[in-house]
Amino acid sequence: MVSFESDYNNGCHPLVMQHLTETNHESSLSYGFDLWSERARLKIREACECPDADVFFLVGGTQTNATVIDATLRSYEGVVSVESGHINVHESGAIEATGHKVLTLPDHQGKMDARELEAYLQGFHTDEAAGHMVRPGMVYITQPTELGTIYSAQELVEIHHVCQQYHIPLYVDGARLGYALASNTNDVSLPFLAKHCDAFYIGGTKVGALCGEAVVFPHRNADPHFFTIVKQHGALLAKSRLAGVQFDALFTDSLYLRISRNAILWAERVKEIFRLKGYPLLLDSPTNQIFVILSDTEAARLRKKVRFEKWCPKDEKRSVYRFVTSWATTETDIQTLESIVNEKQEE
Amino acid sequence: MVSFESDYNNGCHPLVMQHLTETNHESSLSYGFDLWSERARLKIREACECPDADVFFLVGGTQTNATVIDATLRSYEGVVSVESGHINVHESGAIEATGHKVLTLPDHQGKMDARELEAYLQGFHTDEAAGHMVRPGMVYITQPTELGTIYSAQELVEIHHVCQQYHIPLYVDGARLGYALASNTNDVSLPFLAKHCDAFYIGGTKVGALCGEAVVFPHRNADPHFFTIVKQHGALLAKSRLAGVQFDALFTDSLYLRISRNAILWAERVKEIFRLKGYPLLLDSPTNQIFVILSDTEAARLRKKVRFEKWCPKDEKRSVYRFVTSWATTETDIQTLESIVNEKQEE
Amino acid sequence: MVSFESDYNNGCHPLVMQHLTETNHESSLSYGFDLWSERARLKIREACECPDADVFFLVGGTQTNATVIDATLRSYEGVVSVESGHINVHESGAIEATGHKVLTLPDHQGKMDARELEAYLQGFHTDEAAGHMVRPGMVYITQPTELGTIYSAQELVEIHHVCQQYHIPLYVDGARLGYALASNTNDVSLPFLAKHCDAFYIGGTKVGALCGEAVVFPHRNADPHFFTIVKQHGALLAKSRLAGVQFDALFTDSLYLRISRNAILWAERVKEIFRLKGYPLLLDSPTNQIFVILSDTEAARLRKKVRFEKWCPKDEKRSVYRFVTSWATTETDIQTLESIVNEKQEE
Amino acid sequence: MVSFESDYNNGCHPLVMQHLTETNHESSLSYGFDLWSERARLKIREACECPDADVFFLVGGTQTNATVIDATLRSYEGVVSVESGHINVHESGAIEATGHKVLTLPDHQGKMDARELEAYLQGFHTDEAAGHMVRPGMVYITQPTELGTIYSAQELVEIHHVCQQYHIPLYVDGARLGYALASNTNDVSLPFLAKHCDAFYIGGTKVGALCGEAVVFPHRNADPHFFTIVKQHGALLAKSRLAGVQFDALFTDSLYLRISRNAILWAERVKEIFRLKGYPLLLDSPTNQIFVILSDTEAARLRKKVRFEKWCPKDEKRSVYRFVTSWATTETDIQTLESIVNEKQEE
Repeated sequence: MVSFESDYNNGCHPLVMQHLTETNHESSLSYGFDLWSERARLKIREACECPDADVFFLVGGTQTNATVIDATLRSYEGVVSVESGHINVHESGAIEATGHKVLTLPDHQGKMDARELEAYLQGFHTDEAAGHMVRPGMVYITQPTELGTIYSAQELVEIHHVCQQYHIPLYVDGARLGYALASNTNDVSLPFLAKHCDAFYIGGTKVGALCGEAVVFPHRNADPHFFTIVKQHGALLAKSRLAGVQFDALFTDSLYLRISRNAILWAERVKEIFRLKGYPLLLDSPTNQIFVILSDTEAARLRKKVRFEKWCPKDEKRSVYRFVTSWATTETDIQTLESIVNEKQEE
Repeated sequence: MVSFESDYNNGCHPLVMQHLTETNHESSLSYGFDLWSERARLKIREACECPDADVFFLVGGTQTNATVIDATLRSYEGVVSVESGHINVHESGAIEATGHKVLTLPDHQGKMDARELEAYLQGFHTDEAAGHMVRPGMVYITQPTELGTIYSAQELVEIHHVCQQYHIPLYVDGARLGYALASNTNDVSLPFLAKHCDAFYIGGTKVGALCGEAVVFPHRNADPHFFTIVKQHGALLAKSRLAGVQFDALFTDSLYLRISRNAILWAERVKEIFRLKGYPLLLDSPTNQIFVILSDTEAARLRKKVRFEKWCPKDEKRSVYRFVTSWATTETDIQTLESIVNEKQEE
Repeated sequence: MVSFESDYNNGCHPLVMQHLTETNHESSLSYGFDLWSERARLKIREACECPDADVFFLVGGTQTNATVIDATLRSYEGVVSVESGHINVHESGAIEATGHKVLTLPDHQGKMDARELEAYLQGFHTDEAAGHMVRPGMVYITQPTELGTIYSAQELVEIHHVCQQYHIPLYVDGARLGYALASNTNDVSLPFLAKHCDAFYIGGTKVGALCGEAVVFPHRNADPHFFTIVKQHGALLAKSRLAGVQFDALFTDSLYLRISRNAILWAERVKEIFRLKGYPLLLDSPTNQIFVILSDTEAARLRKKVRFEKWCPKDEKRSVYRFVTSWATTETDIQTLESIVNEKQEE
Repeated sequence: MVSFESDYNNGCHPLVMQHLTETNHESSLSYGFDLWSERARLKIREACECPDADVFFLVGGTQTNATVIDATLRSYEGVVSVESGHINVHESGAIEATGHKVLTLPDHQGKMDARELEAYLQGFHTDEAAGHMVRPGMVYITQPTELGTIYSAQELVEIHHVCQQYHIPLYVDGARLGYALASNTNDVSLPFLAKHCDAFYIGGTKVGALCGEAVVFPHRNADPHFFTIVKQHGALLAKSRLAGVQFDALFTDSLYLRISRNAILWAERVKEIFRLKGYPLLLDSPTNQIFVILSDTEAARLRKKVRFEKWCPKDEKRSVYRFVTSWATTETDIQTLESIVNEKQEE
């Protein structure tokens, strides 16, 4: 059955697997000191044009968010996120488990609005009861967002500017960062991102690796004991080569971008297929997640031949469904989807 | 200067102080085993018509909320509150500091809507991604609310019913419970409250004591190690007599209610004074906190002679201001306020 | 029945109660901004010869320790204490509940040895696996210790010196500080203590108050958001006057010292009574807690007429029992104890 | 350079890599619902003779310990471990970060003594101050221990018996479990272990996998929301196939045991090499970690040609060094080590 269920329902990109296989017999240091982790760090620093960046490899996204945010916040601080932010909804309270509140702002197609952020921060600092409230200590955004939308360079600059005004670090969750970088409408390059935030991570799990996320502190600004923080969060790989080898492959010959471009190419086709047949989209996502509004009977019919996820209810008879592409999506998958969708029209 | 700033800007009720003074020379046990704590527990059980209730005395409200909620929740559970709930706004993240998320619903003049609660709980249990989300493990409401409104018996029954359907304990924060009990529109008695929730606290600090909150588990349903939980939260008084003696006084000859009725009497007069002069109220609060909308110039004029708090901005030129009565409010205070307010009208 | 059970089994000193009574009718600000808290802060700064000290009033000891330690430590740091330290044994895990490990050193009659501290810190910093371990971030000692012993000026200087070498703040738990100050063998004054540590608290609950502990950061070195930290820990009194008035009384005309001296006077007599009759002491405590080794039958006989606590088992037939004096101990109490103890000898 | 540095300084066993490669192109479900995870669960249940066991795959050891222990303990409980226990020393305070104290007993060559455990538990339950102390809520042991020693069946039965008497679950950290199972002196089989504890994990990272630990609740006794707990701890692999495929390989044709036996075979040879040349061992470890006492000059000489870790100082001139074997150790490695060690003797 053809699958558009997620970008983590497959193995890793063949070149990543090949590198794992070819290096498997070699002995190495552990806990991040292995040769491949070091190589991957150099390649990432180069790609970000940040020769001084601190780079760490962790295993998964929830873990990475909890580790970076907990490393940054003081005990009385919280992290500002839009309501639909991954840390606020789908991480089982991992942030709160470290003692910190997620302070929420409304989201606009998944995105934070710089003016709303500024109004909130200004309101906080002039509130006479601020001493009784959780202090904002970090701003968290996702690129792309949970709805597949992306921040433009201008939007990123504005949010970063507000953060700087209020001396609050900005952290960008890049679980699917590749798909933002490869998007047709994107104007935020890796070096631009690195210049306009205090920490971000380059997601591997959802962009062609078996696991692994690369945390980047672009200005050599990691906590001096970040290693210990990673260990305390259960995020330190003994065989760190597992992440190192994979990121070494992903950042060789632009594999990370090539994977992402493949996904974008087919995602644009998915949008087109549904649009042509008159199915409304929830929004015009420029990345690899396409949200289509289907009646429940239409969804049931498609689900006999295609795997995809229900996202959320839309109204009494319709729901939002998500179709996701990845490195593994092929033209054949797209043609299959197209013919299944078209069957409907021909009925 | 006459003060309507809060219900904790004065000492304790004279009868409370008298009891403290008269018992001061006696030796006693500590950590809750003193004679007065035992007496106060009996009187509270009687007032609640809960002969089996577990009753504990803690020091303050934020501490009490964190202790009761943390004692109830499993590590992966959160507490459901309206957005304006005290635990969500003005407790400096004390709940999150114990590792738990505050899950929010909209508030309606400070109150939770039973149908919205039910919709949320039903949605949670049918969400395919529920395993990735914080589980609701307790429902938190305040009586009266942060806006001075109160739940009717019918509303309480409905919320309690939803909680029972979903096997989620209901906890009522009664920091100002007396003012709800004494309100002219109230139909929720202490025994009725005790029957329709799983835990609540009877606030002392804001109702005539120097400090102290009485936590009631009406169905002998306290955690068997609640004593240790209280200690861990830094909420165990060595000289527990301090709370015991005060609650012994407050529950002798209905002092708790008498204090509250005095505050309600004068709060109704405060409302009248402002209404008669055409000042809009934010809402028709039936308890001891009156929220008046004043232009900033009017507020500045009044503040020369009366102390009261700014609550929040209303619009460009106006803000909401709070006037609070207590056991210490006198007819003279009211007359003074009246004449100051009236000065304006006569200009 | 005469009681030597603890120094918190009585009310507050009559002068403290008198001040509470006389000020009760006055209106005041709250949350630490009341007049008496401000006065008490000035008097404490003067007594400590620290005109710049930050002073905060909290409610109880466990809470104070958790608040100060959590305010100081980063998430990956722990606090160093001797094994018998209060935070390590009798605070129900309040430190760990804030996410921090208590790192233990052996105790010597309740005290930490400066050389053992230095050896531990040096070992930590040269351990190749230090990155996988909890970093020491604060040193915690008690003055007097849980066994009633006190650090000499020389010992305090040595510990402080090691802390400074390793850039680790030193915190002194003074739950019973008065009894150290008043001890016949003491050479550590309040100003000397303030010079040789980074934070300490002056215990009120066990030295004549109903509740209350005064935290002192002698070098104006409190966290700028310590107010919020106190609130988050549930340790912020709304009616802060409760603590403020009491400390105002305790630091007027040296009442704090006079209370302590009374307890020391009678504690010395308690030691003498037992020594004269040949009962061994666990150690020669110079403060208000006397630890006597009694056979269980002797203890049972005494307990018919005197209240005192069992401390810990000593050997098969004997245990250590604790006799405590306080502001409330009188010559009559001592004479009663003496005659009861002597009965034995005359049998 | 020949390496005896650790059992995680190499890639995975070739058969594990082969299975990863051969399955890489297949699409699968995620979050533990993939085919290989299900297969691996069945094989592990069979190997443990626990058809009902709940089995979960996590990524690393520290994470697994924190997740299992936090899932079991109530907020006021701690976990009992020997002082040398991994959770107490080398996990950066991961347990305390979840709010729980590690309660320590002395270790005897790394092992807990059942009688000391019983004495501690009995003492706790008869201590009048127990309410002020952290309650023991789980017992943690490691098999093999941090020093390479193993519990005999009799020792395990005794500890389990004490735990049952006091209704405290027993959890066994099996980071290197294979090496215990394969040890020449072992009499604790997987089914026997499963019968005599409440939870344990089968370590993959140190026994031939790239990462992965299999948590087993042998009596279908996992928390019903363990999935959410795993997610909250950042331990849920999106591409769960990474762990599933590896454990599927490890539990096919007894690969897990074969890997372990290879390591034991060569570890015995390592012991012999040092013994024959008169080097004292710290203890007679029956598993894959051999602790040799070397003068620092001898160590320096060996380190020119062999990689191995310094464990801890022994005395002024000597330290303990650790030599570890694994699936990757070959006869050639051993011969090389032998000749290097022998060089010394021939000088």
